[in-house]
Order: sequence, then structure tokens, then C-alpha cells
Amino acid sequence: MKYIKYSFIIFLLIYINSSFAQQSDSSVIKSIYDEALKSYNSYNELRYLCKNIGGRICGSKQSETAIEWAKKEMTDLGFDKVYLQETKVRHWIRGDKEIANVKSKISGNHNLTICALGTSVGTGENGIKGNIIEVKHLEDLEKIGSEEIKGKIIFYNRAADQTLINTFAAYGGVADQRVFGAIQAAKFGAVGVVIRSLTVANDDFPHTGIMRYVDSLTKIPACAVSTMGADSLSDWLKNDPQLEFYFKMNCKEEPEVKSFNVIGELTGTEFPDEIILVGGHLDSWDIGEGAHDDGTGVVHSIETLRLLKILNIIPKHTIRCVLFIDEEIAQRGARTYAESVTAKNEKHLIAIESDEGGFNPFGFEFNGTEEQTKTFKEWKKYLLPYGIYDIRPGYGGVDVSFLKDAGIPLAGLNVSFQRYMDYHHSPNDIFEHVNRRELQMGAATIASIVYLVDKYGL
Amino acid sequence: MKYIKYSFIIFLLIYINSSFAQQSDSSVIKSIYDEALKSYNSYNELRYLCKNIGGRICGSKQSETAIEWAKKEMTDLGFDKVYLQETKVRHWIRGDKEIANVKSKISGNHNLTICALGTSVGTGENGIKGNIIEVKHLEDLEKIGSEEIKGKIIFYNRAADQTLINTFAAYGGVADQRVFGAIQAAKFGAVGVVIRSLTVANDDFPHTGIMRYVDSLTKIPACAVSTMGADSLSDWLKNDPQLEFYFKMNCKEEPEVKSFNVIGELTGTEFPDEIILVGGHLDSWDIGEGAHDDGTGVVHSIETLRLLKILNIIPKHTIRCVLFIDEEIAQRGARTYAESVTAKNEKHLIAIESDEGGFNPFGFEFNGTEEQTKTFKEWKKYLLPYGIYDIRPGYGGVDVSFLKDAGIPLAGLNVSFQRYMDYHHSPNDIFEHVNRRELQMGAATIASIVYLVDKYGL
Repeated sequence: MKYIKYSFIIFLLIYINSSFAQQSDSSVIKSIYDEALKSYNSYNELRYLCKNIGGRICGSKQSETAIEWAKKEMTDLGFDKVYLQETKVRHWIRGDKEIANVKSKISGNHNLTICALGTSVGTGENGIKGNIIEVKHLEDLEKIGSEEIKGKIIFYNRAADQTLINTFAAYGGVADQRVFGAIQAAKFGAVGVVIRSLTVANDDFPHTGIMRYVDSLTKIPACAVSTMGADSLSDWLKNDPQLEFYFKMNCKEEPEVKSFNVIGELTGTEFPDEIILVGGHLDSWDIGEGAHDDGTGVVHSIETLRLLKILNIIPKHTIRCVLFIDEEIAQRGARTYAESVTAKNEKHLIAIESDEGGFNPFGFEFNGTEEQTKTFKEWKKYLLPYGIYDIRPGYGGVDVSFLKDAGIPLAGLNVSFQRYMDYHHSPNDIFEHVNRRELQMGAATIASIVYLVDKYGL
Repeated sequence: MKYIKYSFIIFLLIYINSSFAQQSDSSVIKSIYDEALKSYNSYNELRYLCKNIGGRICGSKQSETAIEWAKKEMTDLGFDKVYLQETKVRHWIRGDKEIANVKSKISGNHNLTICALGTSVGTGENGIKGNIIEVKHLEDLEKIGSEEIKGKIIFYNRAADQTLINTFAAYGGVADQRVFGAIQAAKFGAVGVVIRSLTVANDDFPHTGIMRYVDSLTKIPACAVSTMGADSLSDWLKNDPQLEFYFKMNCKEEPEVKSFNVIGELTGTEFPDEIILVGGHLDSWDIGEGAHDDGTGVVHSIETLRLLKILNIIPKHTIRCVLFIDEEIAQRGARTYAESVTAKNEKHLIAIESDEGGFNPFGFEFNGTEEQTKTFKEWKKYLLPYGIYDIRPGYGGVDVSFLKDAGIPLAGLNVSFQRYMDYHHSPNDIFEHVNRRELQMGAATIASIVYLVDKYGL
């Protein structure tokens, strides 16, 4: 009887305690969302980054200014430690705006909106002129053959699959044209490459992005034409396969330069050597303002620490914000960071990345063990009131992916997919396309997960 | 043995059949989303409605043009029946753009961006000039009293609650200022009313919307000032409570005019007299383009029928698209429609409304019996791949709510909440703020539910 009584009391205590914990966790998480939604802090940071600094390709003066700004911002916010982590980055320069036009006695003469692909060689002073061969797939060149291709310009015009709900998958399905198009075309003696912009949008913005060369082949210049331009070019070609395409690009690569990841920390009270990482990338392409890619990830990461600090949520583990440099070109920042983690044998509980834009969040992609995934999925109950309903398997993000080999669980914030590719890598990726409340919902979501990982481990 | 064998075969047949049905439903729904995401049809319709017709307040020339356009559009799309349903609507005219300014020897002279609230009386040629009393709640006037208020202008400046995830709730929490502010102020002898725009955005757009008068009290003019303007006005008042506010509004109300709901149908093959209704409202406020409110609901509704038709999904029940007139002022279209349903004793399986904008959909609010709710919630399994995860109780929408008394289950498309109030009832509600893919996700979601209701009933 006595035993039963005690059992019951113990059960009751555990029960009350666990409901209280859940109640309390829900309250803490509500306080995080409340503060985020009332605040203009990260929105104003983003405005500064976009409007006062602008596009910040690695190695550029703007990227240096962004590094200084981020360091000062985190220092001013009173984070416990703020420091730079040195790395080296490639230094590619676009030069004057690119020019392209079409001349045809049948289809008429037209200008086209293009931009150089990232790290493309330039065309030289006189530009490049030639007939165009339009293809949909890299393999098409094998059928066409060198004789036909030699001296011509290859136009890769495979459109993104509109039916995919996940526009990152739609992008992934056509990215080979941009990344490997110049290598393949050079193999068959082409003198240049034009790709259809990798987007689901139908507009006149060209979208840049990284491309690759191999040393064994001629490096030929490669540009992106807007999707509207690609459709027009395709139509003009149908009328006149002999039309002459001209483009001039002034880009070039200079020697590598020193650059930095910017790191800010709230030091853990119990386990200062154990890290919870949140990060985004500070570099962007040069032709927009790098708003959604990845200014929003930068301010999400800073804001996560600010929210915990201002709400007096004292972390047991060290919460580290890492603003990676050079995601867009060679991920040197991410590689340097991962090397340092291995060298120092630094324990990380999780590495969370935000690099899908500042849209309304709906979940995370998570990359960890089965047990970790189970725990992470259980936390959905705290986040469902805020529209976070989906924890799916995924790789986490480009920058944090380098930490996978160290056995660190990775998570990437998933946000509404539909608008991102309208802006991605284009002059249209500007501050005006970010909504303050959507942005803040993302920051609050990351901060809530950080709070849970800190409290319960993973 | 024989019995067992037969049972097993029957079980197997049922099992195969039901998996096949589910497989087949999933395929049909995928085909709906695929077609929607590839199409530009409703996006182009919306562009026309916004850019060629524009704001279309009921009773206006633009609303007449919109009615003609919608009828022609549905006729051109080959719907089985297209017709108008006559009603009468109020005819309020804004007149020339409103003017407002502040004069103060301490706070300086400033112009303010205002707009008349919908159905407000004008100020007369000379405008209205007076001192301002700032309050947060309607009840505050009771404490202040008539002696103090008489001859003054009441400035309702209670801000929307930023911490609410559902911005419609944030809006609802401050709407009393706009709807009842002038009645309350007139009770105490005020000569005019200024309200803080009902939005969670911080910008310089004034947001209009319906207000009310009672015949027993003086009708005093009422305007909305932008949220930035409201904050400035409040600051200026702190420095100089005696500052002079002036506003001039040229609005007036003319006699009621004839107007119409526009209705299009795909006739049901088995139950032509049983209706599945999808609708939005064709009228909008006059100061924007009525893009998200409710051009997107209009094109969602038309697109639902187009998707079924083009995919050759032959409905058993009649699918009826109703474009209601006069949602914004007196819901005359919705009332007329509901009266007609009662008069004809017309059976409706469901009435689905889209009037929360063309943002990314995440679910429905549903208003029906417990059994119906259970069935509706079960369909989530088909829609989850498209991000539709939330079926919550709710009233369905303003226009369809008039059908509640007839016992018709109601559903309202729920879309991402965060951006709507940035645009709602303001000059910023323009086509450019609608994303094609988000818009089409909404249309596909409604069409999928229509398909399921048609097939399985409710």
C-alpha cells in the first residue's frame, strides 16, 4: 500500500514535471516568435546589407565591407565572442556589363539580356560572333558531332520542370547546362556557350551561377540569357538557323585573395566547448543584392543569437553563428571551417543552415542518425502552431555539408519553395522582395530549434 | 475452405480496388497540379483584371467592365453555362484624391498620406480642421467625455498585434476602430475620425475598408492614415497636443445601381441539380488593383473549372463558379445568391471560397458537421505532397457564410498569412505582388478538393 502510494506520488511528480516542461518549452518558444515578429532588427540588417553594401561576390571590395559590417554588427549586439576565420578565395571580376545581340535578315536584329556565368573567361575586346546550335541536353552534342559544332556557339535551352513543387529540384534538373555546358561544348570545338537561365520564372532577368572548366580543354566564354530571351532566341532560330549571335563579356579572374568567415558566439554556461552552429553565407553573386541568397540566411543566423540573448535564454552549450564566405564559387569558407573543426576535434551538437531564402518557413531537412531524426521530428509538436509541419530527410545545405564527415547532424531551414527561383542569382534578388514577417518567422524557427537542441541534446 | 478462398479473393479484389482508387486519385490530383503549374492562364487573367480594368468598387464603371470581362472569359473557356445574377449595390464614389496635413508651431507642418474609409461622407469643399485627440480604444472616449471631444477629430491609433501568426486575427483585433470609430466619435460630438491603417506593415500606404454609420447620429467623415503616418502623427502630438489637423475628402454616395454576380458552370453528368460551388469576389476597393483582394480568388475560381475541363475530368455534379459582387461594402451579391439558393431549394454539396489572397496555400478552414469534417480531413493525405497540411475549423469566408443557414458545408482556402495585410485594401494591392506559381498552387488545391467532393460526396 505504502509502495503504491509512493509510486503514485512519484508518477504524479514526473507527470506534472513533464507537462510543466512542455508547457514551459511552449512558452519559451512563443516568446521567441513574439519577439521575432515584433522586431525590425534583422530586417534592418538585411536592408543595410542589400542597400548599403549590395552584391558581395567573394574577393570583392563589397565582400570585405560585408565582413567588417557583420563583425561590427555582432559586436554591437553584445555577443560573447566575435572573430574572423581566415581563408583564401578566388577573385573573379565581371567587368563592364555584358552585351549580346542577334542579327538575321529573316528574324531581324535584336538585343538580348545576358550575364556572364560565374568564373567564365571573357570574350576579349572584340567579343565572339557565330552561328548558334540549340540543344536541350549535353549529350545532344555527341550526336551532332565536332564537324558541325566547330566554331559555333552552343545554346543550351532545356527549361526547368514547372511541375515540381520543390523548385530546388526543378533547378537541380537543369543545372548541368550551366555547370558543365562549357566543358562539353569545348570538347566539340564550340567557341562559346549560352544557357537558358536556370529559373521557373518567365521574365527578362538573366541568372548567373557557378560554371566549371577543365584544364585539358579550351576555356570558352559562357553566359546566361533570360528565359524570355531564350524563348525569343529559339523562335528566331526556327525562322533562321543561320542567324548570327554576338556577345561580349569583360570578365576575368585575378589571383586569389585573403578573405574570412565571420563568427559570433554566445558562450555556453555548462559545455562551452560544445557547439550548436547556425549559419548562412555572407558572399553573394554580384548582379543583385544577395537578398534571399543569402542575406536572409546571414540575418537569420545573427538574429538567432540576438533572440536568445535578448530573451535571456542562457544556453548551456555555445551557440555559434558562422557567416561563411565563398559559398557561391568554391566554398572555401565552409572547407576552412570544416578543417578547423577536425583539427581541433571540436564537438558540434548540430549545424543548421539557412540558404533557401527568407520566405515563410514550413520545416527542416534533417540529416542525422535514425535516433536523432526521431528526436528532431518529435519537436515538431512545439513548432506546429507556427506552421512548421515538415521534417524531411535532406543534406542540410552546401556550407554545412562539409561537416557531414565529422558525424555532425545537419539541418537546413525549409521555406516556401515557389518564389525563390524568381530571384536566385539574378538582378532581381533585392531587399524589396523580402517580407519582414516571413523573414522573422524563419529566424524564430531556427532559434526555437537551437533552444531545444541546447536543452535536450540530440 | 471454399468459403475462406472466396473471402480471400473478395478481400483481395476490394483491397486492389481501393489501392487502385487511391492510386488513381493521387494521379488525377497530380495531373491537376501539373497542369496548373505549367499554365499561365489564370495569371494572365489576373494581369488583365488588374492592369486593364484595375480597382473595381461595386457600382463603378470598372466593376461593370469586370463583369463583362468575366462573362466573356468563362464563355471563351467553353463552360457549359455562363450567366449573370442581378442584384443592387450601393454606389459610393471617392472623388479626387484626399488631402491631409498637420500644422504646428512646435512639431512643424507636414503632409500625411490618407484615404477615405469606404462609404464615408466627404468633408465638404473646405475640408475639416481641428485639434486631435489620440486614443487606443473606442471606450476611451467614454472616459474623455463630450465636453473635451466636441468639435475635435478623434485619432484611433491602436496598432495590430504583430505576435499573431494569423494576420487576419491581427486585423480582426483592430478593425473596430475602422468599422465603428465614426459612430462612437459622433456620439461624443467629434467632427471627424482618423484611424491607423489596419495592417501589420510599416509603410506609407493608407488602407481603406468598410465603415458604418447609424442614422440616429451625425455622419462624420473618416479616413485612414498609413501606419508610418500614424506613428509620426502620434509623435507630433506628443510634442504639441494643440496641433491643427486638416483633411479634405471628396467622397459621396449616389443612388443604388444594378449590378451582377457572374456565374459559370460545368454541368454535372449524373446530378446536374446538385452544386459544388467555388467562388471569390469580383469587386474590390478602388485605390489598388484588387490583386490579392480578391482578383486571385476570382481567377482561382475560374481556373478550377478550366483545370477540370482541360483535363477531361467530367464531373457528376454541377461545378459552379460564382464571382460575387459587392463583398467589400454590403455583400449584396452574396445575399442575393443565398436568397436564390433558398428560393430554388438548390442542393449544394459544398461552397468553397478563396478570399485570403494568392499566396502559397497550406490548407482550408472548414465549416461543416463532425462527419463532414472527418471526411474532409481524410483527404489531406492526397494534398500533403503539395504542402496542404492543415484543415482547421473556421467560417469559410464572407460571401459563402450567407449559405450557412441553408446547412451547406463551407470551406475557405487558407494561404500563407504573412504578406496579405501588406497589400489589403491599399494602393499596394497590385498584380506585381502575386507570384504565378503560388497563385496556381491555390487553384490546383481548390480543383483537387472539388474533384474529391464530386467523386466521394461530403
